[in-house]
Amino acid sequence: MDDPEYRAGIIDLLGALAVGELTAFQRLAADAELAPTRADQAALAGMAVAEFHHFEQIRDRLTELGVALDDAMTPFHEPYVAFHANTAPSNWLEGLVKAYVGDQIATDFYREIAATVDDDTRALVNDVLAEAGHADFVVDRVRAAIDEDPSVAGRLALWGRRLVGEALAQAQRVAADRDALTAIIVGAPGRPGMDLAELGQVLSRLTENHAQRMAKLGLSS
Amino acid sequence: MDDPEYRAGIIDLLGALAVGELTAFQRLAADAELAPTRADQAALAGMAVAEFHHFEQIRDRLTELGVALDDAMTPFHEPYVAFHANTAPSNWLEGLVKAYVGDQIATDFYREIAATVDDDTRALVNDVLAEAGHADFVVDRVRAAIDEDPSVAGRLALWGRRLVGEALAQAQRVAADRDALTAIIVGAPGRPGMDLAELGQVLSRLTENHAQRMAKLGLSS
Repeated sequence: MDDPEYRAGIIDLLGALAVGELTAFQRLAADAELAPTRADQAALAGMAVAEFHHFEQIRDRLTELGVALDDAMTPFHEPYVAFHANTAPSNWLEGLVKAYVGDQIATDFYREIAATVDDDTRALVNDVLAEAGHADFVVDRVRAAIDEDPSVAGRLALWGRRLVGEALAQAQRVAADRDALTAIIVGAPGRPGMDLAELGQVLSRLTENHAQRMAKLGLSS
Repeated sequence: MDDPEYRAGIIDLLGALAVGELTAFQRLAADAELAPTRADQAALAGMAVAEFHHFEQIRDRLTELGVALDDAMTPFHEPYVAFHANTAPSNWLEGLVKAYVGDQIATDFYREIAATVDDDTRALVNDVLAEAGHADFVVDRVRAAIDEDPSVAGRLALWGRRLVGEALAQAQRVAADRDALTAIIVGAPGRPGMDLAELGQVLSRLTENHAQRMAKLGLSS
């Protein structure tokens, strides 16, 4: 943390995570209103609340570091707002798939970044990203819907591809804009990072994990 | 709880509270997106999350009583949806006033009802309605906005009156529809309730408390 560029990168990482958790809270809460029953609504609202508590952990760390919340979050607000605006679910099932697939691909991505940072930051990131245990609920509801009407699967598979495409587009936008954050991943003079081969492996792991999750939902990827 | 009509009334009370807390969660979460800063957004989102945790306590009690969540909640879904549809804030300050005034008038109302029920139910209701301590945040923001532009006060005072009017309209609709719930308040054969004079006192206390809260915000009522 004595290296100003490294510190800037970590604050970027925490700021991006904070925006991710807070916007995920907002979107899951909104999508919960699409639920067919109050029990389902409460289940998705519970996923939103779990994201908010993750956000609170990151907010506390930013406060410890003496960084104002808005300073850390503002650079990442627009890309996340754009992601969610471009992937607003039009029905309950799309909302469920997004809650599961969208959240998990972001989790995988931040975990990969966390591998390259100091122990304290890594512990916080992994703690914040710990599986909230709601995935079973989503898998159960999506598989039941496909059993009832198999034509649903094709539309939801397309939807899953759109989610990943949008996520990658926004991630690239952030990487291009935020040099300090990119340097956390690829390194900087005197601080080694991932080389091209390792970056390629990260991308294959992300893709592989995404395909496995889609398969678990009964969807092709 | 051995009296089936009393039991039905308590389940109605818990169902209405559950809907109130879950819809408050939804609306506060949505209104948080109107916030001018991420810190403000997080503060209102935190109020939403507090409502969700209250909801969870009621859900647990309904489960203990062997009542399905949707059975208890469905009768009260529409009036709450109507209330929120008719009082959607058009800006951040309206959202703040609604979060504070709307939540507190509902709290007062349920506390008055709780005075007439068994000890266990009363303890749960009072626990769920306990001040979440976010009021200072709202008072601070609203007073600062009025200091900056005094013309805001007139519009927000009107808004406060509209919130109360809508709340009363929906409460009357529920009272007319749900005999068992009404009997919790006004009594039933063999089970005394409030008489007309006591009901009048309840209404004056609700009005009085509302006026005090509006004054605290710097608004006439």
